[in-house]
Amino acid sequence: MNKIEPTILKGTRDFLPQEMMRRNAVMEIIRKAFEQFGYSPIETPIICPAETILGKYGEEGDRLTYSFKDRGGRLIALPYDLTVPFARFVAANYQDLPMPFKRYQIQRVWRAEKPQKGRLREFYQCDIDIIGSKSLICEAEIAKIIVSVFERLRIPNITIKVNSRRLMNAILQSFGIDQNDSLAVIRIIDKIAKIGKEAVISELRKMGIDNAEKIIATLTPEGTNKSTLEKISKYDIAELKEFLSYCTDLGVPEKNIQIDPTLARGLDYYTGLTFEVISEDADFGSICAGGRYDNLCGLFSDKDFSGVGVAFGFERIMLLLEQLKITGNGKAPSQVIVTIFDENSVKDALQTYSKLIEANIATEIYFEPDKLSKQFKFADKKQIPFVLIQGPEEREKQEITIKRLQNGKQKTIPVNQLVSYLSNYYEAQ
Amino acid sequence: MNKIEPTILKGTRDFLPQEMMRRNAVMEIIRKAFEQFGYSPIETPIICPAETILGKYGEEGDRLTYSFKDRGGRLIALPYDLTVPFARFVAANYQDLPMPFKRYQIQRVWRAEKPQKGRLREFYQCDIDIIGSKSLICEAEIAKIIVSVFERLRIPNITIKVNSRRLMNAILQSFGIDQNDSLAVIRIIDKIAKIGKEAVISELRKMGIDNAEKIIATLTPEGTNKSTLEKISKYDIAELKEFLSYCTDLGVPEKNIQIDPTLARGLDYYTGLTFEVISEDADFGSICAGGRYDNLCGLFSDKDFSGVGVAFGFERIMLLLEQLKITGNGKAPSQVIVTIFDENSVKDALQTYSKLIEANIATEIYFEPDKLSKQFKFADKKQIPFVLIQGPEEREKQEITIKRLQNGKQKTIPVNQLVSYLSNYYEAQ
Repeated sequence: MNKIEPTILKGTRDFLPQEMMRRNAVMEIIRKAFEQFGYSPIETPIICPAETILGKYGEEGDRLTYSFKDRGGRLIALPYDLTVPFARFVAANYQDLPMPFKRYQIQRVWRAEKPQKGRLREFYQCDIDIIGSKSLICEAEIAKIIVSVFERLRIPNITIKVNSRRLMNAILQSFGIDQNDSLAVIRIIDKIAKIGKEAVISELRKMGIDNAEKIIATLTPEGTNKSTLEKISKYDIAELKEFLSYCTDLGVPEKNIQIDPTLARGLDYYTGLTFEVISEDADFGSICAGGRYDNLCGLFSDKDFSGVGVAFGFERIMLLLEQLKITGNGKAPSQVIVTIFDENSVKDALQTYSKLIEANIATEIYFEPDKLSKQFKFADKKQIPFVLIQGPEEREKQEITIKRLQNGKQKTIPVNQLVSYLSNYYEAQ
Repeated sequence: MNKIEPTILKGTRDFLPQEMMRRNAVMEIIRKAFEQFGYSPIETPIICPAETILGKYGEEGDRLTYSFKDRGGRLIALPYDLTVPFARFVAANYQDLPMPFKRYQIQRVWRAEKPQKGRLREFYQCDIDIIGSKSLICEAEIAKIIVSVFERLRIPNITIKVNSRRLMNAILQSFGIDQNDSLAVIRIIDKIAKIGKEAVISELRKMGIDNAEKIIATLTPEGTNKSTLEKISKYDIAELKEFLSYCTDLGVPEKNIQIDPTLARGLDYYTGLTFEVISEDADFGSICAGGRYDNLCGLFSDKDFSGVGVAFGFERIMLLLEQLKITGNGKAPSQVIVTIFDENSVKDALQTYSKLIEANIATEIYFEPDKLSKQFKFADKKQIPFVLIQGPEEREKQEITIKRLQNGKQKTIPVNQLVSYLSNYYEAQ
């Protein structure tokens, strides 16, 4: 029979134990942070009616969404992000939710992109959102959580870029750009970090915007947040000012926040403040992003709720941790392995194994009698600290040998002292 | 604009915080059990090349697999279970794995079935598998873990039904059933628990098997494991006997194991012992099932590894826990909520919030000044035990009031004692 290639799709990944344990540890840190700020977990389906996903991310978003017909002819889509499914979730369940509702959600999402560094087709996002409050305290809380998450992950030098969609629209309008064109213009400006000022100006000119240079100059004042706000003070900057003041009250360090009037975020659904978090140490895009969306739930319900939130890009965070060599430990779950000396040792080995498991000691057994050297090598590969050996002599004396692989030291003790010996060791740790 | 219905597909589900927290708690118990026995976590992709999924579950399995073409014309499939993706994973990664390799995997899988009680289209499985050892100690360990998991979940009265594919084939052969027909016959016998002996006999007769009654009589001897084995002792029952002896050594209670010569498990890939766990208290099918598969990795690789494992049906376990009223607590993550008395209280409230978060106390803030009664109601809905209030009087005296919602008691203390007051409370818990 022909072998099937054991391949996976480009942009998707297999996670081996070492990496998986590192990922789980990082996810746990993020989850703990979210819960400490009072966010509750929810989960939404992966296979979704296509109309609940498509048409909310602009043309490019639709193009990048995985969608297909099921056998019944129903059009299905896989989530492109977790924000739109959350808006749908709120519209369906708001009567059972405490409002304002704060949720976190950690799931995979999909994008039919060309895979590259920091860009996968299947990846995890870790989202927090607050729905049902228009208070700018929400935005400040989000900034506080962002700082807290990256602090807990020991990732230094992060900057939260902040902008206001309303402000950007007002600036564009003051330069004579029609409201109908502004989304297209914003999408071009969004590329400024990627392709540079010059290229953006030339693209805008191609659209027939002659004063492109002036627009970009206004949008890129540079300097401190204070001086930036001063330079654009003829526009309505009350929103940004209020946000900054709440951030100060919450103890968000000023150095972590940067007002950036060019920040656009390509997505169509943002209406208020937008966020993008970058790291000085990352050679790829943002590691966290989001903003306020006033009308997203309204797509699904007569009841409208304003929402605000961000998605932490889990895969990019893992990449960054690796680059920063903050990788953590991916150690074997087991602390003890029971070897099987020979055919006659099977029964005793099984009973020892059973006893240790019942004493809540993470243990495994080597599944068949084999050369001890091979069993040691196996234990070593799995980094299991304690190896138990019971040969014929030890069996006769009702003893067992405990070998520490790390330093090769070993000790022979009566079998009936084994559990207390190992338990004491754990308590001492 | 027309509203989009906030619907989800039949057989998929939204999980609200209460249920999500219950699910997380149960998953954590299962995960801990797996890890205690030395199983390591892995994860495999959700969008897969179709050829790595299809063709391994028989015709019905293929029919129930979600598959579709992506925009590049590549045929994609979503996992039908976690065993076949694991076999593919081993073929791709065996050089980096310690052999024998024990992994656990908790992920969603999909089946395009007609949804009904205990049967969803999108659901979680919790799998353990051992690959790279033919020792029957593996099977006994699996039985031990099954008992341990259900014990930890406090689910009583479970039975592990066990059979041997080899034995079943030998019995069928002795009744003159051709090896080529045996898979079709096994699939019919597999329905015995669902449709009853009579119906199975009549279906077999339709296939032209005249001695169907005798076959079924041989396969359903009833009685204890010992008497069952005696009745079929003219066949090769060494495998089952060895398995039972290891189970005894591992302390698996005899009452939890039942040799059942009719147990077939519809899936094509099993070659050795098969398992199916049923609960006396469940009015739906099995809650855990699996078996040994000798040739599954061989589909993907020249290197062949025998494997054995089971999948715990997470959704059915949740259903059963609910029926048994073992639901656990789904409490709010927050312990404290900071209310905002009026516009003038915002700054102090934000600072209090920030201080508590920094002291690692799970806290949230109400996002805007509002009637206290409304803020209390919100706290109550979220079951947050401590509510903090600071009105103008308290603010002036640098005090703050702590109200316990459970009993309505309240206490006013100096603001600078708040953190130590709440921390002491937690330590005392």
